[in-house]
Amino acid sequence: MNPTIRSISLDTPAAIVDAAKMQRNIVRMQRRMDGLAVRLRPHVKTSKCPPIVERQLAAGASGITVSTLAEAEAFHVRGIADILYAVSIVPAKVNRALQLVQRGCRLKLLTDGPVIARELCEVARTRDITPEIWIEVDVDGHRGGLPPDSPQLLETARAIADGHGRLGGVLAHAGSSYGLRDWPALQALAEQERARCVHAAEKLRAEGFDCPGVSVGSTPTALAAKSLPGVTEVRAGVYVFFDLVMVNVGVCTIDDIALSVLATVIGHQQSTGWAIVDAGWMALSRDRGTQKQQTDFGYGAVCDADGHVEDGLIVAEANQEHAMVRDLRADGASLVQRLPVGAQVRILPNHACATGAQHATYHVLAANGSVAAWPRFNGW
Amino acid sequence: MNPTIRSISLDTPAAIVDAAKMQRNIVRMQRRMDGLAVRLRPHVKTSKCPPIVERQLAAGASGITVSTLAEAEAFHVRGIADILYAVSIVPAKVNRALQLVQRGCRLKLLTDGPVIARELCEVARTRDITPEIWIEVDVDGHRGGLPPDSPQLLETARAIADGHGRLGGVLAHAGSSYGLRDWPALQALAEQERARCVHAAEKLRAEGFDCPGVSVGSTPTALAAKSLPGVTEVRAGVYVFFDLVMVNVGVCTIDDIALSVLATVIGHQQSTGWAIVDAGWMALSRDRGTQKQQTDFGYGAVCDADGHVEDGLIVAEANQEHAMVRDLRADGASLVQRLPVGAQVRILPNHACATGAQHATYHVLAANGSVAAWPRFNGW
Repeated sequence: MNPTIRSISLDTPAAIVDAAKMQRNIVRMQRRMDGLAVRLRPHVKTSKCPPIVERQLAAGASGITVSTLAEAEAFHVRGIADILYAVSIVPAKVNRALQLVQRGCRLKLLTDGPVIARELCEVARTRDITPEIWIEVDVDGHRGGLPPDSPQLLETARAIADGHGRLGGVLAHAGSSYGLRDWPALQALAEQERARCVHAAEKLRAEGFDCPGVSVGSTPTALAAKSLPGVTEVRAGVYVFFDLVMVNVGVCTIDDIALSVLATVIGHQQSTGWAIVDAGWMALSRDRGTQKQQTDFGYGAVCDADGHVEDGLIVAEANQEHAMVRDLRADGASLVQRLPVGAQVRILPNHACATGAQHATYHVLAANGSVAAWPRFNGW
Repeated sequence: MNPTIRSISLDTPAAIVDAAKMQRNIVRMQRRMDGLAVRLRPHVKTSKCPPIVERQLAAGASGITVSTLAEAEAFHVRGIADILYAVSIVPAKVNRALQLVQRGCRLKLLTDGPVIARELCEVARTRDITPEIWIEVDVDGHRGGLPPDSPQLLETARAIADGHGRLGGVLAHAGSSYGLRDWPALQALAEQERARCVHAAEKLRAEGFDCPGVSVGSTPTALAAKSLPGVTEVRAGVYVFFDLVMVNVGVCTIDDIALSVLATVIGHQQSTGWAIVDAGWMALSRDRGTQKQQTDFGYGAVCDADGHVEDGLIVAEANQEHAMVRDLRADGASLVQRLPVGAQVRILPNHACATGAQHATYHVLAANGSVAAWPRFNGW
């Protein structure tokens, strides 16, 4: 049973985290990684919330993954030293990154080419630092990285070895997993991600390079992988909350989604019968990640204030501080009775990372109905 | 000539405001409203930045429009008393709103029905406050409000008059203007917005109600209106920055856009030749407002670091902290030479309100090349 929120006075819109669902998600992923005998390095870009990350570490995670230096700095100050910065480093950010290393952070930097590797090593030499550098490998043509058979892979490793760096390993992210929707395809992509990344590591080792780490992951491939021989760690982020995109991909149910936006009905559109709520795109984000998936949830799926899904209700349109709730099963039927002015609803997000980013505070709802305010941060 | 940014050291991604373009936009709208003999009440939800709003007031604006009580509170503390809260008030927010009135804010509240008007007046009576209440009128079936001929219009005015309220006027927003693209259609919608809202005011006056204010507006209708007899004030927001949606609507040129996101090239996608920059949807927003317009700019149009448009370059895809820049005119051609790693670009937004909201600071670039950091805020 979902904990109730009816008696709690919160200004709307507000980001709500169901603590029990989140903990279940954390434990599920950690157990899976334990079973596959790999470390889990959660991507904290999803929550950017120290108490949530503490729970992931308490459950058994090894270090964290970050998407910005601001995250690395914020979590290092809070005592986390093992941090992977999973975005290619550029010269303008090297000084700031190396300052973190000088302060004792075991920061892992990422590159996908010899030119930047050399520049990074040169700056490190002047500071007498030996930074740990990982090489990004492209496993699905989705974003950046070097193909495992690229001559640049060896060249980059050589630039690190000849320079003032230390090769930490190879890293891949099968981002195209978000576009899949059936289990065999997910399992095949997980195996492709694993095999190509391990292949890159083996190519480097065959040339005499020490390549200790093999890091792969995305929430869908992490949950689909049958076995992960050769992999040392898995990165995943959105699993901590899950969302409607992940429901469509097939790796969670709608009941697993731990993040929602509490909203109040402020009116009705007379011509359509739609209800208008006070959570527009400023509270929900403009993310339309389910638009091309099998079920398009508009700007989100609508639940009652206790978090039970209201079948057929979605957020059909969003302005900055207004959103329009539509009944897909009885279009044209008025929602005036079902959702009167003042009624509260909770809206499940398309993409939890994007929706969370619109809020400075998570209101964390415990099973006993109590609510705690947990801060999150943004910025670079 | 655009002021240069090359010599300025800013961590990327960063929101840049071209001060001269912004001032030109402010003056253009103010002169237009002066010429039409109506007051301009800028919607500050676009910038949420006190120094920018000060410039709008200095140019001649009369009061401000807000989309949240947090905006009303933040601007009232800074000395602005004439504030219209242009979102339907709900019972849960009445106390907070009336506290502002008690602190001396001339806050105008909005409703579109007699039930809430009565509830609002009841609470006001217990506090011995006579709140100024406006009635929302629907002029294009786009969002909320009462049709001008609805019997509820008179009923709502009566609830205010019989209760402890004071009718401030009627308000309309022709939000469907964002979907138009030619001048005759915009002019027709501006006239429809004006005529229907004035009609509502006249209906109220014919029944003996004092209805002093007639407030209409959206940036496109404000710029298209030929004349505004009967209107007392116009609300508009996005004109202060303009954006690619407004370019497609036809009310500005791409050179008028005052807001951009400075980004650094961090790599290239080998399979497509696309450049990867460090401004993902966290910096650009997920807004895809140009998707259904005549020119789809993806997640934004790409300029060089000085703000000159790079013809054919758009942001084709966006992840949280990565975005992919594609050359529409020579697809498959590598951008490695044109945009090497470390190069900086500026990305023009689809929707300035949404992109601004992703940043805590605007870096305001003056004509002499100096940069000032102006804070903005979010939240409710």
